Amino acid sequence: MGDDRPIGVFDSGFGGLTVARALIDLLPSEQLVYVGDTARYPYGPRSAEEVRAFAREIVARLVDVDDVKMVVVACNTAASVALDELRATTGVPVVGVIEPGLRAAARATRNGRVGVIGTTGTVASGAYANAARRLRVVAEVTCAACPGFVEFVERGETSSDQVHVLAERLLSPLRREGVDTLLLGCTHYPFLARTIADVMGRDVVLVSSADETAFDTRLILESTGLGAAPRPAPEHRFLSSGDVGWFVEMGRRLLGPELERAEAVHFRAAPPPAAESR
Amino acid sequence: MGDDRPIGVFDSGFGGLTVARALIDLLPSEQLVYVGDTARYPYGPRSAEEVRAFAREIVARLVDVDDVKMVVVACNTAASVALDELRATTGVPVVGVIEPGLRAAARATRNGRVGVIGTTGTVASGAYANAARRLRVVAEVTCAACPGFVEFVERGETSSDQVHVLAERLLSPLRREGVDTLLLGCTHYPFLARTIADVMGRDVVLVSSADETAFDTRLILESTGLGAAPRPAPEHRFLSSGDVGWFVEMGRRLLGPELERAEAVHFRAAPPPAAESR
Repeated sequence: MGDDRPIGVFDSGFGGLTVARALIDLLPSEQLVYVGDTARYPYGPRSAEEVRAFAREIVARLVDVDDVKMVVVACNTAASVALDELRATTGVPVVGVIEPGLRAAARATRNGRVGVIGTTGTVASGAYANAARRLRVVAEVTCAACPGFVEFVERGETSSDQVHVLAERLLSPLRREGVDTLLLGCTHYPFLARTIADVMGRDVVLVSSADETAFDTRLILESTGLGAAPRPAPEHRFLSSGDVGWFVEMGRRLLGPELERAEAVHFRAAPPPAAESR
Repeated sequence: MGDDRPIGVFDSGFGGLTVARALIDLLPSEQLVYVGDTARYPYGPRSAEEVRAFAREIVARLVDVDDVKMVVVACNTAASVALDELRATTGVPVVGVIEPGLRAAARATRNGRVGVIGTTGTVASGAYANAARRLRVVAEVTCAACPGFVEFVERGETSSDQVHVLAERLLSPLRREGVDTLLLGCTHYPFLARTIADVMGRDVVLVSSADETAFDTRLILESTGLGAAPRPAPEHRFLSSGDVGWFVEMGRRLLGPELERAEAVHFRAAPPPAAESR
């Protein structure tokens, strides 16, 4: 018994590797196939229609070629614009990275005030505000963009004075709002959890999108009978549409030693997006 | 788009109607087919093998005759002994009533101390303790049996001095433990929420198994693309294996006015269980 097919995970780049990390830790018998669409990264500045087309293409590849039993959309941008369509058109369950964290944060708050931090693009897209409405979250949700956080994480600089000063400045509106729960709405942010916790204070609960997405994935696998039978840790596969060496080097910082090598995958070419401020 | 087939919900009797209530409120476009196996009620004192056979029989009926797209095991006893088998053998997703609440309670606690209250049978079965281990819940989970609560609810007596005195006595071990989150691990208990909150104190968060099961059901429907398209509230169906008139009369107290009539359903006869103390 058990379904040994892999779980497909995709992101525009590396951030989704923190979701992959959480999945590996929570579901050690499951095999992952991760697609990082680094050739067309970042998705943030692209149009919704373009992102939906990319997402369709990646999911078709995961389902048709890699025979995945489930798809995790580990990209905030894609989850916010493509999830409904993917769920309606894909023959396997699909989870996104926005709703699990929001649901958990709404559950965790005591005073009904939840903060969400994300990239400028994610916050501007209204993805969390829309999801809060759709899920009928009763808590008051305040979003704050944190431009610069991703760059600090990608440089490996997660606890310097500079990042602390930046966090003080970006998080002060949420402190003024008195949020007692803070959702880390970008897959890079768990690396800054200590700095963020120092700034917000020990009474504020931090909720990780990556962890909550892994919990929801487990629930879906179990309820649909799609979980793998217990087995030794399978070898995961990592596919990158851009420079494979760069992907491995950057990716190991976010995922860890399981990322030893990556394979090339090719998608339709797309023009580079306009300059983005994250 | 959308799958308009009903959701199957079953319980040994009436308690699962609070789960049905939560489903109706959260998912107003979904139609329910509820089976209350009142002819063989209660399941608590029966052997695990017998309960598994009953659950198999009811789920086969729901899938083969009623064409349900998903099954909610709204019975603590059946969820604790039959869920794995049902998930592995049923072609539609299956959720139980134990894990959703436990997961939410573990997420909601601040001090890591979670209380669970249930019937004597549920607590003695170790269902919540087992689920906590299986889900790798890190919180300390303390269970307390609350014999008598179900009888008060079924008499419609939810805020009398007597029920308050009983609650004081039964909940005092959990107060001594300093739990900051209390899971109502029996589908009848939300009717006693005010009394329980008075006794536990306003700082203790109450988590309802029924509500959390409805949230997980929504997640599974959405992620699998099985949700119904938006539509006016469909008429739900209620099936009882015992006295239909009694089912409607008792059931309306727990579900509300949507329960206007019930149909008879027949399962294999089974000897009455040994006397139970709930």
